[in-house]
Amino acid sequence: MIYADNAATTELDIDAFEAMRPFLLQQYGNASQPYSFGTESKKALRNARQIIARCIGADPEEIFFTSCGTESDNWAIKMGAILGKRIVTSVIEHHAILNSCATLEKQGIAVSYIPVDDVGEVLPGELEKVIGVDTSLVSVMFANNEIGTVQSVKELAAIAHQHGALFHTDAVQVVGHIDVNVHELDVDMLSASAHKFNGPKGIGFLYIKKGTEISAFIDGGSQEAGRRAGTENVASAVAMAVALEKNCANISANKKHLDELDDLLIKRLNESDLDYRRNGGRNHIPGNINLSFNGKEGEMILHRMDLKGICISTGSACDSVKIQTSHVIKAIGVPDEYAAGTIRISLGRDNTFEEVVAIADALVSILK
Amino acid sequence: MIYADNAATTELDIDAFEAMRPFLLQQYGNASQPYSFGTESKKALRNARQIIARCIGADPEEIFFTSCGTESDNWAIKMGAILGKRIVTSVIEHHAILNSCATLEKQGIAVSYIPVDDVGEVLPGELEKVIGVDTSLVSVMFANNEIGTVQSVKELAAIAHQHGALFHTDAVQVVGHIDVNVHELDVDMLSASAHKFNGPKGIGFLYIKKGTEISAFIDGGSQEAGRRAGTENVASAVAMAVALEKNCANISANKKHLDELDDLLIKRLNESDLDYRRNGGRNHIPGNINLSFNGKEGEMILHRMDLKGICISTGSACDSVKIQTSHVIKAIGVPDEYAAGTIRISLGRDNTFEEVVAIADALVSILK
Repeated sequence: MIYADNAATTELDIDAFEAMRPFLLQQYGNASQPYSFGTESKKALRNARQIIARCIGADPEEIFFTSCGTESDNWAIKMGAILGKRIVTSVIEHHAILNSCATLEKQGIAVSYIPVDDVGEVLPGELEKVIGVDTSLVSVMFANNEIGTVQSVKELAAIAHQHGALFHTDAVQVVGHIDVNVHELDVDMLSASAHKFNGPKGIGFLYIKKGTEISAFIDGGSQEAGRRAGTENVASAVAMAVALEKNCANISANKKHLDELDDLLIKRLNESDLDYRRNGGRNHIPGNINLSFNGKEGEMILHRMDLKGICISTGSACDSVKIQTSHVIKAIGVPDEYAAGTIRISLGRDNTFEEVVAIADALVSILK
Repeated sequence: MIYADNAATTELDIDAFEAMRPFLLQQYGNASQPYSFGTESKKALRNARQIIARCIGADPEEIFFTSCGTESDNWAIKMGAILGKRIVTSVIEHHAILNSCATLEKQGIAVSYIPVDDVGEVLPGELEKVIGVDTSLVSVMFANNEIGTVQSVKELAAIAHQHGALFHTDAVQVVGHIDVNVHELDVDMLSASAHKFNGPKGIGFLYIKKGTEISAFIDGGSQEAGRRAGTENVASAVAMAVALEKNCANISANKKHLDELDDLLIKRLNESDLDYRRNGGRNHIPGNINLSFNGKEGEMILHRMDLKGICISTGSACDSVKIQTSHVIKAIGVPDEYAAGTIRISLGRDNTFEEVVAIADALVSILK
């Protein structure tokens, strides 16, 4: 098998697995219990929080563990909602953001959606046009999960702050893959998910800047400083920290490797006479290659690739139950004859040159 | 170490760990992706859902995976909230319920709290007194996490239905420990958490009866029939199913063993001249032993026991950051001179007679 769907999920890092194992098996004590057996879990959780904070330039008290990136997004959006105030977001957000906004709209919260240009960029001027004194929260994703386009987060956050609004970014595709420093970027909230950076599924975090007024999304016990209740998932938090630290230490090397794989794939495709376009801008997440083939069907490509043992994606990876042209592909104005033939290849740190050649050759043989 | 805090969390079953391992390491495919590698995950998830459904007499489509019992409780309560209508719950619920209700009260939803009798039972007559045509939801826990008292869930659910209200039960302490059949009980929603029945932390489920109007609590992708978004935590769901099936197959044997351990502990304590009372009713969760010692401090007992390598609890296990007499102990009217000296010993399937003798002897030596 060749796995080239790393934007959907990644393989668990073996060191992360080894780090979580003792907390699954021996050190199962409840981290909120005051006896020694709970203290070991609590220490491990504290250590994980410190590592994660360091990786994104935050303070440990600013990291709140959640069950996934989607929960983090829901929390940020629903916490930022104030009746009578407006939320501003982009048209190409993940459904975790868009559907949270739709829920709020039903509750009477106004939401404005900023368009993107033809590479999927949210132009700061577009935010300027839409934002107002009535805006409580701006949420723009750090990089898009389908086409990989990286946004001008720092600039967008500054505009939000000039208008007295909070700024949240869904960085699920970015954390562990691109350098992130929350203080430098001056964002108020940032969402991340472990399984996108070789950590386990079922855990993520929300960064919330110190001083931000926080309301809980999940009410209950005193865990996570009383902001996110539920018995702590220590094993997964520990694994997330190990995976993130390892990926962050290798961001440059991984990027170099992925850029080389990217170049190779495109070179091979260009040597064929396939009629395709590449979607997204120059500044994209390493390894993200979104392609639209003229007159083809993405589903067909995916299934033929699957028969050859190659995993790629079509449409939005996290929502592939519905078969329809993705809102992102529509938003960047991919012509109809290309749009239906869209696939996403998302390479990861463990992909090899040989695999990329095999992917290119498979595509050419399927599509020629 | 002697672990006697099984109501706080339990040791992960080794078969459950072995079942989750391949889905952590090799079968990491995203269960929502249509290629073969995702299909394996999807199949495992479907199988886990079927097993869990069977264990509680539900249909698979009625099981929705969540990240924990607390999330399940939040979902049930917040989904049942209708502005202008009232929620009815008991004064001894877990903070996941009580704090969710407090959040709703701030949003203008009325909440009524039913008192309990001196063993912690919610008398059906008390619900009759409080419920009205304005009630949208009744939520009463199946069994209390501190004193173990099991409620007359079937009778309470029937009263809720007679008044046109939905009935939810927080069964976090019960599932895997007492036979539960949701159809027989005729409850509309039921919360459970894997780590309370030897499954992993970070996963739980909410049973929602077919035909119930469902709104999502976590918005996003199409996972869980579009009702609970977020990439599926396949490994943990699989482990939860294995743990639950195993515990359900041994409910009678485990109960018999735990009742014998209980009898032995009480017999040893009664042979001492300690002045104590046992809290909760005759019908309690197997292994739950809540004791109040006259003129003593629960914290002191816990720490001395800890020094002897014995893990027990004081106050509410899930909320032990705050040191105060628990709302449950207050609600059942434990006299002040006893209340402060309250501890909870919660035995599990793996505790032995030798351990129970050691626990009793340690208590006597600390308290005499």
